[in-house]
Amino acid sequence: MFRVGIIGATGMVGQRYITLLQGHPWFKVTCVAASSNSAGVSYGESVKGRWHMSEPIPKEVGELTVIDASNIEQIAKSCDFVFCAVEMSDKEKVKQLEESLAAAGLPVISSASAHRWTSDVPMLLPEINADHSQMIDIQRKNHGWSKGFIVVKPNCSIQSFLTPVYALRQAGYEIDQLSVVTMQAISGAGYPGVPSLDMIDNIVPFIGGEEEKTENEPLKILGKIKKGKFLLADNLNITAACNRVPVSDGHTACVSMSFKKKKPSIEKILSIWKEFSSVPQEFKLPMAPKQAIVYLNEDNRPQPKKDRGSEQGMAVSVGRLRECPVFDYKFVGLSHNTIRGAAGGGILNAELLVKQGYITK
Amino acid sequence: MFRVGIIGATGMVGQRYITLLQGHPWFKVTCVAASSNSAGVSYGESVKGRWHMSEPIPKEVGELTVIDASNIEQIAKSCDFVFCAVEMSDKEKVKQLEESLAAAGLPVISSASAHRWTSDVPMLLPEINADHSQMIDIQRKNHGWSKGFIVVKPNCSIQSFLTPVYALRQAGYEIDQLSVVTMQAISGAGYPGVPSLDMIDNIVPFIGGEEEKTENEPLKILGKIKKGKFLLADNLNITAACNRVPVSDGHTACVSMSFKKKKPSIEKILSIWKEFSSVPQEFKLPMAPKQAIVYLNEDNRPQPKKDRGSEQGMAVSVGRLRECPVFDYKFVGLSHNTIRGAAGGGILNAELLVKQGYITK
Amino acid sequence: MFRVGIIGATGMVGQRYITLLQGHPWFKVTCVAASSNSAGVSYGESVKGRWHMSEPIPKEVGELTVIDASNIEQIAKSCDFVFCAVEMSDKEKVKQLEESLAAAGLPVISSASAHRWTSDVPMLLPEINADHSQMIDIQRKNHGWSKGFIVVKPNCSIQSFLTPVYALRQAGYEIDQLSVVTMQAISGAGYPGVPSLDMIDNIVPFIGGEEEKTENEPLKILGKIKKGKFLLADNLNITAACNRVPVSDGHTACVSMSFKKKKPSIEKILSIWKEFSSVPQEFKLPMAPKQAIVYLNEDNRPQPKKDRGSEQGMAVSVGRLRECPVFDYKFVGLSHNTIRGAAGGGILNAELLVKQGYITK
Amino acid sequence: MFRVGIIGATGMVGQRYITLLQGHPWFKVTCVAASSNSAGVSYGESVKGRWHMSEPIPKEVGELTVIDASNIEQIAKSCDFVFCAVEMSDKEKVKQLEESLAAAGLPVISSASAHRWTSDVPMLLPEINADHSQMIDIQRKNHGWSKGFIVVKPNCSIQSFLTPVYALRQAGYEIDQLSVVTMQAISGAGYPGVPSLDMIDNIVPFIGGEEEKTENEPLKILGKIKKGKFLLADNLNITAACNRVPVSDGHTACVSMSFKKKKPSIEKILSIWKEFSSVPQEFKLPMAPKQAIVYLNEDNRPQPKKDRGSEQGMAVSVGRLRECPVFDYKFVGLSHNTIRGAAGGGILNAELLVKQGYITK
Repeated sequence: MFRVGIIGATGMVGQRYITLLQGHPWFKVTCVAASSNSAGVSYGESVKGRWHMSEPIPKEVGELTVIDASNIEQIAKSCDFVFCAVEMSDKEKVKQLEESLAAAGLPVISSASAHRWTSDVPMLLPEINADHSQMIDIQRKNHGWSKGFIVVKPNCSIQSFLTPVYALRQAGYEIDQLSVVTMQAISGAGYPGVPSLDMIDNIVPFIGGEEEKTENEPLKILGKIKKGKFLLADNLNITAACNRVPVSDGHTACVSMSFKKKKPSIEKILSIWKEFSSVPQEFKLPMAPKQAIVYLNEDNRPQPKKDRGSEQGMAVSVGRLRECPVFDYKFVGLSHNTIRGAAGGGILNAELLVKQGYITK
Repeated sequence: MFRVGIIGATGMVGQRYITLLQGHPWFKVTCVAASSNSAGVSYGESVKGRWHMSEPIPKEVGELTVIDASNIEQIAKSCDFVFCAVEMSDKEKVKQLEESLAAAGLPVISSASAHRWTSDVPMLLPEINADHSQMIDIQRKNHGWSKGFIVVKPNCSIQSFLTPVYALRQAGYEIDQLSVVTMQAISGAGYPGVPSLDMIDNIVPFIGGEEEKTENEPLKILGKIKKGKFLLADNLNITAACNRVPVSDGHTACVSMSFKKKKPSIEKILSIWKEFSSVPQEFKLPMAPKQAIVYLNEDNRPQPKKDRGSEQGMAVSVGRLRECPVFDYKFVGLSHNTIRGAAGGGILNAELLVKQGYITK
Repeated sequence: MFRVGIIGATGMVGQRYITLLQGHPWFKVTCVAASSNSAGVSYGESVKGRWHMSEPIPKEVGELTVIDASNIEQIAKSCDFVFCAVEMSDKEKVKQLEESLAAAGLPVISSASAHRWTSDVPMLLPEINADHSQMIDIQRKNHGWSKGFIVVKPNCSIQSFLTPVYALRQAGYEIDQLSVVTMQAISGAGYPGVPSLDMIDNIVPFIGGEEEKTENEPLKILGKIKKGKFLLADNLNITAACNRVPVSDGHTACVSMSFKKKKPSIEKILSIWKEFSSVPQEFKLPMAPKQAIVYLNEDNRPQPKKDRGSEQGMAVSVGRLRECPVFDYKFVGLSHNTIRGAAGGGILNAELLVKQGYITK
Repeated sequence: MFRVGIIGATGMVGQRYITLLQGHPWFKVTCVAASSNSAGVSYGESVKGRWHMSEPIPKEVGELTVIDASNIEQIAKSCDFVFCAVEMSDKEKVKQLEESLAAAGLPVISSASAHRWTSDVPMLLPEINADHSQMIDIQRKNHGWSKGFIVVKPNCSIQSFLTPVYALRQAGYEIDQLSVVTMQAISGAGYPGVPSLDMIDNIVPFIGGEEEKTENEPLKILGKIKKGKFLLADNLNITAACNRVPVSDGHTACVSMSFKKKKPSIEKILSIWKEFSSVPQEFKLPMAPKQAIVYLNEDNRPQPKKDRGSEQGMAVSVGRLRECPVFDYKFVGLSHNTIRGAAGGGILNAELLVKQGYITK
């Protein structure tokens, strides 16, 4: 068993990590770190009155003493690698924290956005770019790190549509234009997050920074590594409009897509999605969905309440594939934003890196 | 004062008509008709336990006896024209009902969809195609009607974006592609309508028939009349994805648009919208919004709860105009679906037709 | 394994039975029956577009052919006992259906309300009155049934408070007055059930028949059997006010209680609840909660979203025990209405009756 | 016209004051004060992005410059009296602020709770205790103030039931026990207030301090003034349980009540409520509801969405009067918490005090 630390353990994503890691076959939470406000008391005590999961706090985690996240040395002693789920708004501080942890010999699997555009940090979505982990070698060399490193995962809005799009590109159908309108869950904003006065009988057609992330991050994920550098995908234009809706978990995306040259039939697309398999499935990673893309035939699906839990929250649910009068096709995608889009995605990244030999004891 | 009948008076849209017509300077409700189930009792009795407006039932309407909608003769006696707001699913029956009323000498201002594609029935959105009412002359000739006629209004989803698009086209900037994703209020489905189990902690990415209406109806509205026939606009492609969201009133649309040739600047667009004025404003129709397009500068607007009531629910609220990586620009539009998009729009149509001389005493 | 039939299998409670019985150690669903509308197609087909559980339909149940519920003979052949979860409004028809099934030799474990006040039908809440099953012997004699019988479970609103109240009575502290105000979930009304227009930005302070059930059913459950007849508890007055609130699952009750004579301390009450154990726990029934009454110390608990899943949805969650200026104490109770209050409660009843020897192969 | 200042003008209640005072026949907003953060810019600027009313900001108020609330002198110059709607958590600071304003010669009509239990400050609910304003004379004497004074209004939860209870007591039917369970709107907590993660698919059975206020404040309001001191009503016991529910505006209360001696019939109660009239009605105060208690006959009323706007939000809506198995009767009450329960109630207090001669120019 690997000993695992959660940095930012008291936040929404940190709580989700702790819940999902309960009973994990490879990983055991041995360290919970948070800001100095929470440090020094038991984890159970630190989240009293603000535990948001529907499952209870796992007993053995509840009894761990919360470490101050700035106490790098103590964290490094008590675990083999860390998940970083801090919610600090100051990106520079997040970068420094993650670098300090890596410098202390810890692989850092981050769901924070701070390092997503750092030139030697891979942004992993294992169904798509498991090979980007090779950038870790360069990163280690750049920093002189032997054991530690930093990998990040993309923004939660992207999981709802990028794997289905990638599956078609990989099958030889080059998608060059995407129009994406998201309807995103409130858990994506953490706690307290979105005020209820904005969400009862209302939607908000704006989420700060979200459209830019949704338009740009896919280009790095779908890109290539050449001569030790990331080359962004230069053959794809994405426009995104992001909305906050009164749904607790599950981001939905209405997507239109155009193909550059040949356009597959609807049957062909459905069969590509059905047969799609990738590194996480081939490695049989514990957190991997058996079916990465789940297509639903009913007219009115996917729906957040009914489909966010598909494949333990790790699948992308897709439906309503139909012709589009402006683009070639349109469809609806959905994924669980705090599982697939955050903690579950982070765990899958860690599992991949164990299998690839980057995380070792 | 014109004596007005409401056909389908007990439904959601019928109730909204009654509420909006209270204190109207030209129109007075003198006849309420509904299915035979409701007929014979006072209107107040007929909607007991299912009055959905926040204002109370106007006293004088509450005391009217509900007439069976199939009793054309009695309706014709008691009013000068009618608003048709029936919610019957059988379109043929709606067509027949509306034709019988017109044949009995009644102008029929309908919010039902049955006659929207009838070749001699104008689909009026007075800010855009007030001149389409001339088709009434042909319609009367076709049917041999001297006084009666039928006009319809478009689907409620269209009001949230079509006037801003038209304003730019009219100013010489030809928009040829539109991508529209709507987030529509539950009142659009009537009562009982959408089950709450589908709307608590959920959205539904499908509304039967709505996408087709949103893609096609604008082509008739933006079209021309040549040689007594409607020519559909042939220079505009629209794709629509329609979602139901847990909002009581107010349809929101995320819109991307492309210009065929010259593309105006953002400043130019904002000034066109600000200065936009049209027939309802020029005629100073009582129901007309003073400002037909209200642009909001805040990042996170328009929002249904805050903006649906703008200009007594008759404005289109617009915000977030910004460049689009795939189309030229994107913006967010919003309108009140049971006021601007249904009863208020119907009243505006009637006011226009009075002013144009088609409705007379 | 017992072969189990679900009567009313396509409704909300029927779906919950099917979901909860997946992987049950004793019971296997071999028969799904519904109204003639649904009969003749596979179960999967019959609930297409109206499956409301977050788990998918179990494969082997999805492939069963739906039987017409009036086809008693065929049902009797294909199972050892049945859960009756019909949602028909005509109580007489439900009574006849359940009696026909019992007459055909089937134990009928019902969640319908039709037979709750039938003089020889026990209304079981196994934590409280497991011994009431003895009435089955009398019922069988009355009807001349050798194998079949009918038992019912109480209304879903009652589970949120009655076990905590019973635990205190059983410990010798006679509660004689209860004031209960419930805030009940929409799933209790089935599907389509409560219209969303009534539940977005609203509550409804009325649920037909619910207050009477909440006030009266506890008297039968807490009653005794004397000379083959139920004696209602005559030492308890209950007042109930029942409200519908926009929560998908989980009924909450605000309760005040008075003790007839001696009044226990808060510490005493908490210890009685903590140590409470009953027949389902002693029999280690598969569906029994290990802890029947779960007390939460946080000020703001129990909450439906966080606590309805406690003990797989079978616990009663309790919190906020405090002194009451009018009664002696007040507290808040919560239970999952479609698990503890419906299908889960039915399964627990069946498990009890297997253990007691009333259900046999 | 009286010149009016709003202290705490940028908060939820402050915004409601500004909205309600638009077009007021006696009062004109000439001064808006807030914390130093907001001071120095125009009011429109200060609430940009956080204006929560559905009506737009009145133009002339939007252009006022926000004054620092600690600048007592400047406030005193620019208005004849003030509404205090500050949301500071430090009660001592609120007390000092209100006393400074009064010392500067300003009548202070407060909706803050700080001074509710100050021995010489009346807590006015004008339908009930308009005569308590006589305590102002004593207050002025105690402080040596000639023109300024402080009056407060009770907590918003109380308006939903206290006037109907008072109407019966006043008619000679002494109610001695009340059990109240409230379901309170989120606007009561201000903005950002309640996190949406707590209000989507959830209720919270706790609001800090609210039960104590609901149980105690009525005793002062229903009390008498003897020898210059408040005597609390000593013949009434109230128990309250307060819940937060996902409703934007409108507090609902489920109430049971017992009469000490003679118990009126249901018909008698209904006629007392119907005929109830009080000082605000007799004085024809502009903000007074014509009908202070509005009884609804439908089974499922009052409901927040439909009834909170009754009498411009100033009525108490009541329904479901029925016998109670534990108390004598039960009913449901509802009032608009930010109108009747906050700003509207404050304005009514000011109108009363003008009429009584306590506020002068």
